[in-house]
This record gives sequence, structure tokens and C-alpha cells, in this order.
Amino acid sequence: MSSEQVKKKSNSKSKSKPKTKPNSNSKSKSKATKQKKKPVAEKGLPLFGEFSEWFNQVLIDAEIIDYRYNLKGCGVWLPYGFKVRQYAFQIIRDLLDSTSVPHGEMLFPLLIPEPQFMKEKETVKGFEDEVYWVKDGGTKPLDIKLALRPTSETAMYPMASIWIRSHQDLPLKTYQIANMFRYEGKNTRPLIRVREITTFKEAHTYHATADECEEQIREAIECYKGFFDALGVPYLVTQRPKWDTFPGANYTIAFDCIFPINHKALQIGTVHNLGQVFAKTFDIKYETVDGTQEYVHQTCYGISERAIAALIASHGDDKGLKIPPRVAPIEAVIVPILFKNKEQIVLDVCNSMFKTLKEAGLKVRLDTRSISPGRKYFHWELRGIPLRIEIGPRDVEKGNICLVRRDTGEKDFVPQNEAVSKITSLLQEIQQSLWDSAKENHQQWILRTNDLEEALEYIDAGNGVADIPFCGSEECAAPIEQRLENLKFLGIPEEYIPALNKSVKVEKDIYCAYCSKLVKQYWRIGRSY
Amino acid sequence: MSSEQVKKKSNSKSKSKPKTKPNSNSKSKSKATKQKKKPVAEKGLPLFGEFSEWFNQVLIDAEIIDYRYNLKGCGVWLPYGFKVRQYAFQIIRDLLDSTSVPHGEMLFPLLIPEPQFMKEKETVKGFEDEVYWVKDGGTKPLDIKLALRPTSETAMYPMASIWIRSHQDLPLKTYQIANMFRYEGKNTRPLIRVREITTFKEAHTYHATADECEEQIREAIECYKGFFDALGVPYLVTQRPKWDTFPGANYTIAFDCIFPINHKALQIGTVHNLGQVFAKTFDIKYETVDGTQEYVHQTCYGISERAIAALIASHGDDKGLKIPPRVAPIEAVIVPILFKNKEQIVLDVCNSMFKTLKEAGLKVRLDTRSISPGRKYFHWELRGIPLRIEIGPRDVEKGNICLVRRDTGEKDFVPQNEAVSKITSLLQEIQQSLWDSAKENHQQWILRTNDLEEALEYIDAGNGVADIPFCGSEECAAPIEQRLENLKFLGIPEEYIPALNKSVKVEKDIYCAYCSKLVKQYWRIGRSY
Repeated sequence: MSSEQVKKKSNSKSKSKPKTKPNSNSKSKSKATKQKKKPVAEKGLPLFGEFSEWFNQVLIDAEIIDYRYNLKGCGVWLPYGFKVRQYAFQIIRDLLDSTSVPHGEMLFPLLIPEPQFMKEKETVKGFEDEVYWVKDGGTKPLDIKLALRPTSETAMYPMASIWIRSHQDLPLKTYQIANMFRYEGKNTRPLIRVREITTFKEAHTYHATADECEEQIREAIECYKGFFDALGVPYLVTQRPKWDTFPGANYTIAFDCIFPINHKALQIGTVHNLGQVFAKTFDIKYETVDGTQEYVHQTCYGISERAIAALIASHGDDKGLKIPPRVAPIEAVIVPILFKNKEQIVLDVCNSMFKTLKEAGLKVRLDTRSISPGRKYFHWELRGIPLRIEIGPRDVEKGNICLVRRDTGEKDFVPQNEAVSKITSLLQEIQQSLWDSAKENHQQWILRTNDLEEALEYIDAGNGVADIPFCGSEECAAPIEQRLENLKFLGIPEEYIPALNKSVKVEKDIYCAYCSKLVKQYWRIGRSY
Repeated sequence: MSSEQVKKKSNSKSKSKPKTKPNSNSKSKSKATKQKKKPVAEKGLPLFGEFSEWFNQVLIDAEIIDYRYNLKGCGVWLPYGFKVRQYAFQIIRDLLDSTSVPHGEMLFPLLIPEPQFMKEKETVKGFEDEVYWVKDGGTKPLDIKLALRPTSETAMYPMASIWIRSHQDLPLKTYQIANMFRYEGKNTRPLIRVREITTFKEAHTYHATADECEEQIREAIECYKGFFDALGVPYLVTQRPKWDTFPGANYTIAFDCIFPINHKALQIGTVHNLGQVFAKTFDIKYETVDGTQEYVHQTCYGISERAIAALIASHGDDKGLKIPPRVAPIEAVIVPILFKNKEQIVLDVCNSMFKTLKEAGLKVRLDTRSISPGRKYFHWELRGIPLRIEIGPRDVEKGNICLVRRDTGEKDFVPQNEAVSKITSLLQEIQQSLWDSAKENHQQWILRTNDLEEALEYIDAGNGVADIPFCGSEECAAPIEQRLENLKFLGIPEEYIPALNKSVKVEKDIYCAYCSKLVKQYWRIGRSY
């Protein structure tokens, strides 16, 4: 996280202070002549402090996704962004493929016939303003209109009802990664509120008992934590209020990421315990060991391309992106520093270094374009490549290479024959360090207070989210939510969620911030996207 | 290819005769006691000779894709099929990512606003009966109706017009793998004629000159050959007649696979030289070195899930699938043969063998389900796993394992400590052998003759496709196509295609099979899906 962000009143529970980190502007520490030239910001990326402008611009400048498509809320993934997306979603694939009973990846049709979509009344109510309807096929109207999936329950569950026959078919764990559509009336926002969600990973599981269903909720939460940890994206886990639960579900647990600068919460993952509601609607039954017929118990959980939005927001700075090595399309870029009459000896070392690193399995690029090194630095810093390898005539002479970290700007000279091991360990360090500093920042943006006015002031000043003692009733929540624009009850924090704790934490002597009833939990509120 | 297929009159040019292969029924050669039990065909897969029934049934039984979804022409990829699809399309990804100027993978919106879609008149004409139209968003009609992409030219080219500014931006090579939609009025067929094409790989390239464009056509053809070679899918390359060229293109070169038994041709890939037609419609210009503005030259080329249909058809037999190792989700399955009091020693060896093979990077599965070995054989043969590893008490005693090939049924006993190298080389052999025998079969299904009546008889008898001398005019083609149901002019074979040959082959003394004009080429005709 860059240093220009405004320091906030820190959470009373805040763990450690941010370490003093080297200035991210590597030039101030540079001794090498070649570094004196200041890279020219060709397109003029807005400062990270102007967060929304920065975010929208960096998506195009760093070639992530381009929303200049002729339809609101629909964008084009560019090759570099596509690869980040691919590496990121491969992580969740690997996690789901390797649970004790593995999740099987499937792919369901996009189109859902109206009667099938309308079968689950709660779902219909939840989505009726957001569904796109296909009404014509060729030049003629269709007999039955077709929904573009806004989520896939109604597409999947009639099939599950065919597949599941006996207790031996359970548990069944499935997922798909596909696009889905929501006709957003409100302002759309790149990667955050879009009409075509190009990337929605939705898992759906089927179980014999309610207990196994609860167990699955915990497995899902662990998978998602593993996923966000790998992306270096900090998160808060909360159980959503009853009035903000997924239509038809018993309860919903959500992951939120607090964005830097504006400190709004973005929902980046949800996990739903569906109980038997859908099983009853779609007749998903199994034969028990005793030969009786029972409805299955279900969960579903989703993650979308918002994960990429959170990845970008959590690590960016004035220069552009910082991509954690695990999802970086290129982990290290080699930039030759060429001087007259010494071009070939430098290029030879660069080529052999490229070969060595590639053979060692590193994602490496050699940049031999005929533009200045400064422009290359700018180009790759903007795209957030974790490590730059500079090789000039003096390095060749000394048998060294120069490594420059994107996250801290630190430089290090290492012997060429130690390149692989040094780079490998440095990439691990960068991965960890990005994660640590994002988490550290995140923890400072949560205020726990018994004073509602203090909480509202804190949120209104854009300082973060706040935990207040709360009774859980919608009647008390509504007037509080009206106090500030976009204020939302995110719900009860992780330590109080019954499904996630053998014994939930119980607070003493605290009273609902609105009705003053004695309560046992803090609830989290904040501005939300 | 299984032996029950009817032997056909062979092509006059036919290269070599099929080698005598071991009977694919391994049981007839088996000596081991455990093999005496005949696996029970639980679901009764139709014989391969009943090709259409076999094909439709094997898709469900082998868990590839399930069309019992409540909408015609829309299916659900099952986990096993999904993995085959994923491995297959990873091959084309790798090929496109590693061309001299790499293709960048992108992802474009599914929805295309009507005015944008209508801009290219030829495209509109070609697709007007097949486009699904979204007309409502939520409960209200949309201002502008939206097409579900039937192909992506009109979605992509307005963006290319933004991205391409100068000759330095060229060549630009892009592709996407996405779903697309065609409202098929005719009978739909699993994986072959569907309404949601779930998997369409379409590449689009932009060039400064017509020559580079032609060069790109050759690169595309090479990529596609590499892809089908890896899948072991045999193909014919032909240039489509003018009247069957992609709407708006200069010319279209197509890959067809002849299916076994019915010997119909299935188009499995197309490569189009688009010239400057779309560039002019969508204003895709670049500044030349001299500072003038020129329209780009374009190609596009596509491959769909029909590749998986061809993969399945090309290698199947009465027992089910034969998946080439390169795309097999599991290359080898270990089946423990358990006898009373010797369970543990056998399972120990199985577990350690599993670990060894997995660590060697093989895609391996250990099947410890409590069903009989015979049912396991049946299960994995149906799914086409290339290699079965049987381990019983006698094998443990002797320090052996028994390897059984899915393609030939051959058995081989090898020492446990040679397992990795032996299995690795056997998998390579199976890969090659599946490819060789599919190609060999394919070559027998082409008749070259100067006699139209002989050609028509050959095709009508379901023996294959035929090459006849032909003048190339639509007037002569039309009456010939009317002679048989579904008869089509596939076009001119590879050796005569100007774009693919420095000097095209020229035939002497042959005369158009319809108008008797002196002609220089044979044309290919056949029944087609």
C-alpha cells in the first residue's frame, strides 16, 4: 500500500504498527547512472489517492480489461488481464479439486426456460428486476422466453434431481466457472458492478444431513480463505443479516474486502446454507440406507471477478499495479542496459539468463524492444511485474545482475550463478510481504466502539468500517442505515458466527446501539459498494 | 477403430493396409483367472456399429455431457467430460500462445447491440435466422435489443478499430474461447449441432498487407493440424466452394473429419481470409511508415466442441471410449485384485505404486471402491482410460504389475521398479497407435474417380466421400447436390489450394463430371452433418 494514503484512527485491537518500509520510489536510492532518467508517465495515470479515477484508468493502462465496448457494464479482457484472471481462478480450481471429496467442475447452459426459472419463488423475487430475457430466435418470437442466468440454481437443480438417486451419490460437490448476467439499473463500475459478470465461480453441494451441510460451509470458508490468502487480498468474514440473506437460503456468510483510500467494503465472496428449500422445490431426493426417501441438504458459494478488483485495489500505488508473484503473468522481466560497443556482450548475458530462468520454471520475459530502459521500467511497473532484472556492461564485468523489487523499490546485486535461487526466494518474500502489508493496512480500517455517533463519524469521514453492539433486528437497523448514504449492516463478525465456531464469543455488558437492549455481539457496519 | 465396421472399397491411392491388430477383446487372450468373469454392461451401451445410438449413449454413460437439460440443444458438461475438454483446448491454447508473434487470449462480451451487429450486411444475411435476441431487461423492454453472439466479428472489430493506430500495432493476433449461440431450427445433435455452443475457440488476426494475411492462413492451418494430430483426430483439408464461404470472407478453408460407420463428413475447423471487407465496415485503419492511412487485412479461424465429438467418434468401440493419453483425465488406473487374507499386502503395493506414478507426473487413479474388479474394468474401459494396472497377490509375490492397454487389450507383466519408464513409453505408444489407426481408417474412406455415377453410388452406400473432376461452378454443383440427401460439395482438396501450395497440383485430361469442360482439379463431395 502506498504511503500517500491518509493515516487513520486505528482500531483499538490493532496488532502492530506498519513497519517503516523503504521509499517505494527506487530512484531516490539509486546510484547507477542509468537510473537518473525519470520514466515518463506516458498516459498520466491518476494518483492512487484519487482512487476511483486511478482504478478505472489502471485497468486500461495496465491492459487488464477495457470497458470502451459499446454496451454499458460489458468489458473486454485484454491478454495481460486475462492471464492474471486465469492464474487467479486456477488457484480456486486447485483448492476445490483437492478437497477430501473433490468438487467436480461442470458447465451448465446459460439459458434457463421461464417456467423453470419461475419455479423457486424466492429466487424470482430476488432477481426479477435484474434478469435479461431472450424472446426471439431468428426472426420469430420463441414459444417460451429464456432467462440469461443471473445465478445458476434453477439451471442446476433439475439436473441434480436426475443424478441423485441414493445415499451413495452423496455428498455431491460440483462447481462451474462461467459468465452470468444482471441488468444493473444503477451505475455500473468496472469489475465491481457490471452487466455481464464474465467470471463467476459457483459451487453447489448436496448432502444427506444438515450436519454435513454445516461441515461443508466450514470447508467452503477454508477454501475461500486459501484463495484470498494466495491473492494477498485481505478480507473480513461476516454473517449477513437476515434481511440480506441470499433468496431462499437459511443464512449467508460473506467475505468483504475494505478498499484503500475510500474505505468502502466490497463483497468478494458468499457462502450460503440453503437447507432443503431448493431440494423441495426441485424434488432432489435420495434413498436412505433404510430405503426411505429424503430431501437433500444443500450449500452454494460463489466468487467472481470482483476478486481481481480487490487484488488490484489492495496492492496498487502511484506507479500502477503490484501483482503478487503467484498470479503474475510474468514474475521477472529482464531489461538490458545497452551502451555503445557493448550491446552484444550484454545481450548475450541477458539471453543466457532468460534461458536459465525459464528452464528453472520461472515466468520470465526478456524485453529487447528498442526503447529506453526508463520507458521499459515504466511499462513493467505499471503492470505490476514483481521483479525487474537489470543487466548492464558493469554487471557483465562483475558477473552480477541487479534485482529491483516492484513492491518496495529495493535493489540488490547478486552473482549470476545464484540468480535462480535468489530470485525464487525473493519472489516468495514479495508474495508474503504484499500479503502482510495489505493485511496490516486492512486491520487499521476497523473501529470497534460502543458509541454509535463515534462509529458514524468514523465511517462518514471515510476512515473504515465500524463494529457496534447490536440486537440484530431489522427495525433497529433501518434507521441507522438511513443516517449515511450507502451505509449497510455487513452483519456479525466471524468470531460470533455459530456455524464457524464450536463456542461463539459472547460479549458482556454491551447494549444495542439503537434500542439499548442488552446484547451479546458486536455487528459490523460500513459504507459498501 | 473396432473391427466390426464394414470394410469399404478402398481409395485407389490408399497407402497401406491396416495392420492386423490383436483382437480388441482382451478376455479371449486372457490367461489370468481373475479375467474369467465377464464385465456386466450395466447400462447396455449400444454397439459401435449402431453409430448414432452409440454416440448419444456413450456421452452420458461415460460422463462426458448430459443433454437431459430442459432445453433442446443445450447440455451439461460432466466432470469427466469437462476435463477432456479442458486438456484438449489447452493444446490449442499452447499452440496459439507460442506462434512467432503469439496470439493473446482475450474475452469479449456475449451481448452485441443490434445496430453494431447489423453493420456488416453479409454477416447479418448469413445469421439472421439463427440469432437469439434479448429484448427485456428485468420487467421492462430494452431500448436496443441485444444479440447473443453467433460468432464474434461484430463484437470484436469495433474494439480493434480503437486499439490499432499504427503499423507498430500490427500484426495483432488474438483469440478467445467462449460460448456462442445459434437458434438451430433443424434437429439438434449432441456436440455437433447445438443451440449453445459451449466451447468456441475463435482467433482473429490483423495485418498490414495481404501477403502477411496469406502467411497467417498457413500458420493457422499448421496450428490446427498440430491440434488435431495431438487429439489423434484424422482430417481432410479443403477450400470451400464460393457459395459456402463464410459471409464476408475472400475464401474459407475447412477441416472435415469423416465419421466411422456412416462415413459422413463433419466440419471441425474453419480458416477464413477476410481481406479488407470487415476493416472497411468497422473502420480498422493503421498509419503506414509513410504516414498514410490504410485498412488492415484480416483472418479469422475457429474450432469448437465438435473437436470432442470427432475425438470420441474416431476412437470408440463396443466397450466405449478410447481417450488418447494426451487428453485423458486419467492415463492409468490401478485396480487391486483382492483375495482373502491377502488384502493388505496388495493394497500396500497399490498405494506405493500410486504414489510413485503420481510423483513421476502421471495422471493416475487408484480405484479402491468395494465392487468387483470386473465392474471396475467395465467402468474404466467405458471411459476410455488408456491403461489399466492390475495388481494381485501373485503380482506382489513376483514383484510385477500387469498392464492392460485399452486400445488393443494387450497385457504385459513388468517389474514394479520399471513401472514409471514402462508406463511412460507405453502411453506414448498408445497415443501414436490411436492416431495411426484412425488415420489409416480415414484414408480408406476417400474414393477418387472420374465417374460421377460411381462416386454417387459409393457415397449413397455410406462408404465415404468421393473426389470427382469438377469445374467449380455453382450451376454444375446444384444438380449434383440434389442427387442425394445431405450431399455437399466440400470443396477442393489441400493439394490444389493456392494459399497452401507454392505451386498447386494440376491434373491432366480430366473433365467436369457435370458439364464435361476440361478441368485441372478434383473436387471433394460427400454426405455431411
